[in-house]
Amino acid sequence: MRATMIHGQRDIRVDNRPEPTLLTDTDAIVRVTAACVCGSDLWPYRGFREITEPRPIGHEFIGIVQEIGARVTSLAVGDLVVAPWANSCGTCPPCRDGVQVACEHRAVWGGEDENGLPVDGGQGEIVRVPNADGTLVAVPGVTEPDEALTKSLLTLSDVMGTGHHAALGARVAPGRTVVVVGDGAVGLCAVLAAKRLGATRIIAMSRHADRAALAKEFGATDVVAERGDAAAAKVRELLGGVLADSVLECVGTAESMGQALACTRPGGALGFVGVPHGENPLPVSVLFAKNISVAGGAASTREYLPELLTDVLSGAINPGLVFDAVMNLEQAPEAYAAMDERRAIKVMLRP
Amino acid sequence: MRATMIHGQRDIRVDNRPEPTLLTDTDAIVRVTAACVCGSDLWPYRGFREITEPRPIGHEFIGIVQEIGARVTSLAVGDLVVAPWANSCGTCPPCRDGVQVACEHRAVWGGEDENGLPVDGGQGEIVRVPNADGTLVAVPGVTEPDEALTKSLLTLSDVMGTGHHAALGARVAPGRTVVVVGDGAVGLCAVLAAKRLGATRIIAMSRHADRAALAKEFGATDVVAERGDAAAAKVRELLGGVLADSVLECVGTAESMGQALACTRPGGALGFVGVPHGENPLPVSVLFAKNISVAGGAASTREYLPELLTDVLSGAINPGLVFDAVMNLEQAPEAYAAMDERRAIKVMLRP
Repeated sequence: MRATMIHGQRDIRVDNRPEPTLLTDTDAIVRVTAACVCGSDLWPYRGFREITEPRPIGHEFIGIVQEIGARVTSLAVGDLVVAPWANSCGTCPPCRDGVQVACEHRAVWGGEDENGLPVDGGQGEIVRVPNADGTLVAVPGVTEPDEALTKSLLTLSDVMGTGHHAALGARVAPGRTVVVVGDGAVGLCAVLAAKRLGATRIIAMSRHADRAALAKEFGATDVVAERGDAAAAKVRELLGGVLADSVLECVGTAESMGQALACTRPGGALGFVGVPHGENPLPVSVLFAKNISVAGGAASTREYLPELLTDVLSGAINPGLVFDAVMNLEQAPEAYAAMDERRAIKVMLRP
Repeated sequence: MRATMIHGQRDIRVDNRPEPTLLTDTDAIVRVTAACVCGSDLWPYRGFREITEPRPIGHEFIGIVQEIGARVTSLAVGDLVVAPWANSCGTCPPCRDGVQVACEHRAVWGGEDENGLPVDGGQGEIVRVPNADGTLVAVPGVTEPDEALTKSLLTLSDVMGTGHHAALGARVAPGRTVVVVGDGAVGLCAVLAAKRLGATRIIAMSRHADRAALAKEFGATDVVAERGDAAAAKVRELLGGVLADSVLECVGTAESMGQALACTRPGGALGFVGVPHGENPLPVSVLFAKNISVAGGAASTREYLPELLTDVLSGAINPGLVFDAVMNLEQAPEAYAAMDERRAIKVMLRP
């Protein structure tokens, strides 16, 4: 089969790989129908994480179940399934607590499962999925989604669930004012998640006309192009002299975390989902003095999938709009380049 | 009048000071009937904050209203009042949001009000209270409390409200498991607050028999003497293989914050109220990976006072037990020494 591999910095290739087979009786084999590139895939691509040997890459995909192990009970061959970005068993204490990202039996896409057996990356034709029952979610009544629905289903693998996690971490609720830092796919989904949770005043921070337009389509009431102190001042002005109740940090840099803190009112809540690059500053003295609560982290999108899937299938939300490019799997190198150079917000890959 | 002053490191004196008078029409003059030494008073005492000139000290007191300014509406001469540790106007945006510690017009006990006028410290005979309506809470129907009630009322100035703040930050609720780090007056009140909010499993960390006994009286089900990794392992063992849902950090050192983080389950909540000494470690990478939420900071005890006062007056809670010594105001130097040397948990001073 064909699968995307990372060979080194800015060196993405689509290679031939052995076709996966069932290795344990809790596995499923999934034929990928759509995958995509994550903002976090760009970090090894940019060389921020050393690549010592070529490895499969990709952790967001949907597909059709081709085979299941003897102990898989919630899935059937032929099901259309969404794979969350984090594999999870569904039965250990963290999974039962809804924190599947801390699963004690987690397998790593493009890495290994808990038995040391190889696991495929998501940007390929076929994937062996360990912990199939605890990981995959079947889409009821749909096997051949159109392209718009395909895109929205694919966001449930990561970015829409991650935006929702940011909104929950920031305690978004009807009547609360919201700022979203970051206009990538996660930031845009965070705007949509905030709107879905009832926020009526949502300030998106963006300097890109296309992203700002999509933020507005998703529910942003205001767009702020300023940064730093000027951005916080603009938020204060827009909100009648106070800072925001809920701030959603969707980037992961020291600068974006500082921006988010600066926009949060005393007693407000900061939800953070940007993958931290190095140790971001979370100055305890500021959190202490301003009573700012901080919550978020890696999103257990598996936990949110059923709820968000319902809203995607009903048409209540259309997060698939974050995909502004669709390419063939063989174009994976170009997909990475387009996202790296910000020529695309998010690229869907079709095997 | 007589008032406690800090002259330098380990140099506490009771000096003669001018008797305060009304300086603005929103002031009240309060004759102090009971005051106390706060754990945070020990930090300048120990020299962690430089004392450039003698200044009044103390920020926890109760007393009788002697005079009120022309615009004070909620208080009457003769009222018994509790003064929260933080002065607040009650009307600015942070005060309306219930975050009085971020009051935009806050006066500082032993420092100045927003007009630059001097404000007395709490460990003295008489205090001018700026922002009287927004700060003081009258005790209904009581003017001459007995010693037990006096002690409990005095905890509402700071330690009981601060323990409650830790419990809220850690999302304590019925059914959630709790660990309290710190066995000072705040930590002990945090145990009581967790019990009051319905926690049935409360693990107190203590190595002092008297404090551990009081923690048990306040509702702790278990006491752990271990520290570091051994403490986290003990918590995991006591809770059947998982870490705690809610951890309350009531010290403020790097060590205690690390201990609190180590005891929190993935997806759990850390409430922190220990005044930070230097920048405690809040490693974003750990918060991210474990989805640990962090909330707390300086407690707006003014916000919690009415609710907690009701429970003190009904006898539902008896936080005054944290006072294990009562001294005359003139003994203030000995009160500081006793707390510094951990010969006393908390000392009440009687002017």
